Amino acid sequence: MQEPYPTKEIIEAAARRIAPFVHRTPVMSSSSINAMFGFNLFLKCENFQKIGAFKYRGATNAVLCLTDDQRKNGVATHSSGNHAQALALAARNNKLKAYIVMPENSSVVKMDAVRGYGAEVITCKPTQQDREDTLDQVMKRTGATLVHPYNNYHIIAGQATAAKELIEDIKALDIIMAPVGGGGLLSGTALSAHYFSPGSVVVAGEPKNADDAYRAMQQGVIVPANPPSTIADGLLTSLGDKTFDIIRKHVSEIVTVTEEEIIAAMRLVWERMKIIIEPSSAVPVAAAIKSKDRFANKRIGIVISGGNVDLKKLPF
Amino acid sequence: MQEPYPTKEIIEAAARRIAPFVHRTPVMSSSSINAMFGFNLFLKCENFQKIGAFKYRGATNAVLCLTDDQRKNGVATHSSGNHAQALALAARNNKLKAYIVMPENSSVVKMDAVRGYGAEVITCKPTQQDREDTLDQVMKRTGATLVHPYNNYHIIAGQATAAKELIEDIKALDIIMAPVGGGGLLSGTALSAHYFSPGSVVVAGEPKNADDAYRAMQQGVIVPANPPSTIADGLLTSLGDKTFDIIRKHVSEIVTVTEEEIIAAMRLVWERMKIIIEPSSAVPVAAAIKSKDRFANKRIGIVISGGNVDLKKLPF
Repeated sequence: MQEPYPTKEIIEAAARRIAPFVHRTPVMSSSSINAMFGFNLFLKCENFQKIGAFKYRGATNAVLCLTDDQRKNGVATHSSGNHAQALALAARNNKLKAYIVMPENSSVVKMDAVRGYGAEVITCKPTQQDREDTLDQVMKRTGATLVHPYNNYHIIAGQATAAKELIEDIKALDIIMAPVGGGGLLSGTALSAHYFSPGSVVVAGEPKNADDAYRAMQQGVIVPANPPSTIADGLLTSLGDKTFDIIRKHVSEIVTVTEEEIIAAMRLVWERMKIIIEPSSAVPVAAAIKSKDRFANKRIGIVISGGNVDLKKLPF
Repeated sequence: MQEPYPTKEIIEAAARRIAPFVHRTPVMSSSSINAMFGFNLFLKCENFQKIGAFKYRGATNAVLCLTDDQRKNGVATHSSGNHAQALALAARNNKLKAYIVMPENSSVVKMDAVRGYGAEVITCKPTQQDREDTLDQVMKRTGATLVHPYNNYHIIAGQATAAKELIEDIKALDIIMAPVGGGGLLSGTALSAHYFSPGSVVVAGEPKNADDAYRAMQQGVIVPANPPSTIADGLLTSLGDKTFDIIRKHVSEIVTVTEEEIIAAMRLVWERMKIIIEPSSAVPVAAAIKSKDRFANKRIGIVISGGNVDLKKLPF
């Protein structure tokens, strides 16, 4: 459980380690969107990543960093979202067992997807307390190693590789952006910017309706996210101590956006770029649009977190 | 009006001519879709082309092939769809006037888009006769040159460049597919396969509810498309004499698909590949899926025609 802090060398090693397993996703631009707002956006398309989200990077790195002893008993986590699928697939690809605790009100589609990757799904009541209690029981029963969705340096180092690739592909970015929920992607993005593109400023986007990271930055302490209510359902969680420490050091600013701004940005990307991004990914796009006067003529890289959307519940 | 037949050299010249103006679009694959059906699909993503559709290739080639005399008076066409936008933008990028006859029941969004590219929109009654009469009047008044949406060898040569790029990027394709409406894309695709990948078989997809090309191939004569009724609204027109001649020579087979099969294929691509394809583009995907037993283990290239979808009218 003593993961090393993600130094430059550790992120470089994570990138080499996961390269055979992850897609090197493309970076896309839209001249019409750029013309509308007067900046240059470069979207790092992790919606095209395996399982449809960046989460597969961190999960793969965490699984590959297990000791031989840990490998014997597999991995465990609780998640109702992308991390569940990411860890299940990463485990399967490494011939490990995976135990995923999921709230009993998770969608059947998501549970089936996790089971489809060969993981054992254990359902629990949809409360934080019961998620944690159930996970504790599973770990005691199985001896599996916990892979936390974000407050884990192996996870953070894995997520950092997305921004590292973006920086390699697009030179001289003025600003690098990511959404913030638990902070795994944002802290990794901030570290890669710090190490590999020190001239870039890191700015996060966060839903106004789930602005715990914004308030944590103001107050200097982690604050709870409850009761968050946003279409950006990947960003409901609050920061962990590891992600918060990195974010307060390396993130310049968090821009909060309304639900309407998130939906408009999501729709704009769908319509103009013909790619499906999930609401959480539209958050930093909306934040860039909101900041368009300050961001005029800037080269802005955005890590698009994923594209897992229920087509039956679109906000358009 | 005497455009030369698209020989190998003419298509190569078209590719060079339009290269500075068009996107070289990527080719995308999905390991999960391939695993589902037991074949290897390669999607040439013209949904990422300018104006969101392959039509910009043909329109650009046609505009660049005008004589100096023709350039003075601009170009004209009738279209309620992607060709209207494609010709308007191609004309603007070449500093020409464009006159687009559009049925008065066309969507305001589409008319505004065409006007946004600087074209003059002339409305007409929504009948084929009034479209043609109005276009005649416009051409007499302005001296503009007609650029037909598909039954024009410059257009066909331009559309052929999409399959040419696909063949350059993906070697040893067993099958090359495209949708068929008026036949501009399919005839161009078939010519590029013939010249640049003679080992590939060309198969078209067509909606069962608009199967005039299928029937034309059976009967050996062009048959009218009326009354077609399909979600694949880019495929409502019937073949022209130029496109039909090429198609009967170089297309092996037309596979027809139901509306349900089109919608299921569209949804599958959206969900698994995170890209937005229009119903017309889902038609050859549905045709491949329908033929999965015959197409087992084949390498199948599909020209994805576009991604222009009204997000308020999704079939999911």
